[in-house]
Amino acid sequence: MPLGRDYDRQDCALARALEVLGERWTLLVLRDCFFGVRRFADLRAHLDVPRAVLSDRLATLVDAGVLERRPYAPGRDEYVLTEAGLDLWPALYTLARWGDRHRVGPGGGRRRFRHADCPAGGADLATGGVCPACGTIPPPASLETRSLDPDDVDDPADARPARDDAVSRALRRPHRLLTPLP
Amino acid sequence: MPLGRDYDRQDCALARALEVLGERWTLLVLRDCFFGVRRFADLRAHLDVPRAVLSDRLATLVDAGVLERRPYAPGRDEYVLTEAGLDLWPALYTLARWGDRHRVGPGGGRRRFRHADCPAGGADLATGGVCPACGTIPPPASLETRSLDPDDVDDPADARPARDDAVSRALRRPHRLLTPLP
Repeated sequence: MPLGRDYDRQDCALARALEVLGERWTLLVLRDCFFGVRRFADLRAHLDVPRAVLSDRLATLVDAGVLERRPYAPGRDEYVLTEAGLDLWPALYTLARWGDRHRVGPGGGRRRFRHADCPAGGADLATGGVCPACGTIPPPASLETRSLDPDDVDDPADARPARDDAVSRALRRPHRLLTPLP
Repeated sequence: MPLGRDYDRQDCALARALEVLGERWTLLVLRDCFFGVRRFADLRAHLDVPRAVLSDRLATLVDAGVLERRPYAPGRDEYVLTEAGLDLWPALYTLARWGDRHRVGPGGGRRRFRHADCPAGGADLATGGVCPACGTIPPPASLETRSLDPDDVDDPADARPARDDAVSRALRRPHRLLTPLP
């Protein structure tokens, strides 16, 4: 059922946010940008989304000032989060943790975020994005993400096979957020 | 461009969350549920969304255990947030504040949330949902929401007329979250 992108008659900051973020795949594109995926081909490989859909979502995010295009070779651009884009991290993290608690299984999902720059040695983030070692809420650039081995996760409901594209493999290894993929 | 509701091959808690929450209008339906809107006709009046779309979104949210149907009269049900639904408040609040900061205007939007149960007298919530008076992050049931008079908001960009349905009028007055509309 096609519905317009705008929520013209909803006088509300949430509606204004969703005009930019509420299309299908948009928040997963932004998740990948936080993970250091910057190039169209890598986003395509990881998300497995039609080319036209990805182009449309990136154009909306660039128009809204959430992503910025930056040339990295003649005629080729990367997509990098702006300040407004970086400011979305708490919303993405909070939504993902809700997914962990209520949509995955008792042990939560496979992905963990560790406070890599922690003066107290670092630990996997707890509820609210707090580092249990130092008690602060670290910004995304201070975080390292990794995906646990499926055997380490007590999640009988999650029988979906892991993706095996190059981006997915790179993102299962410990990887600093916002750092371009190797 | 039609896209399936699932993100089958995205092994990620955010994708799992968006399978339930990522359809258009779904997060605005949930916003209204936090505001105390419980009945199909009231949701329809406030959201101005086609009947079939609203039915579909409510059915998905009930199936996922985010909303619960409760009879209030013979043959008539209300939709009430479950524990999993209430647990979405931080995500909705965080997204709305992002909209305030980056999509509305310098002064943010018109809607405010005040810590009504605050032992220190209460104040409008600040960044991160913190009450500046007592320093805690209050749960939604402790909050009162109201919409500022358009003249009180320094937002030249927001020239959209305010809605004038009964639900919109009720929600502009100070109103405790999760409390059914009068």
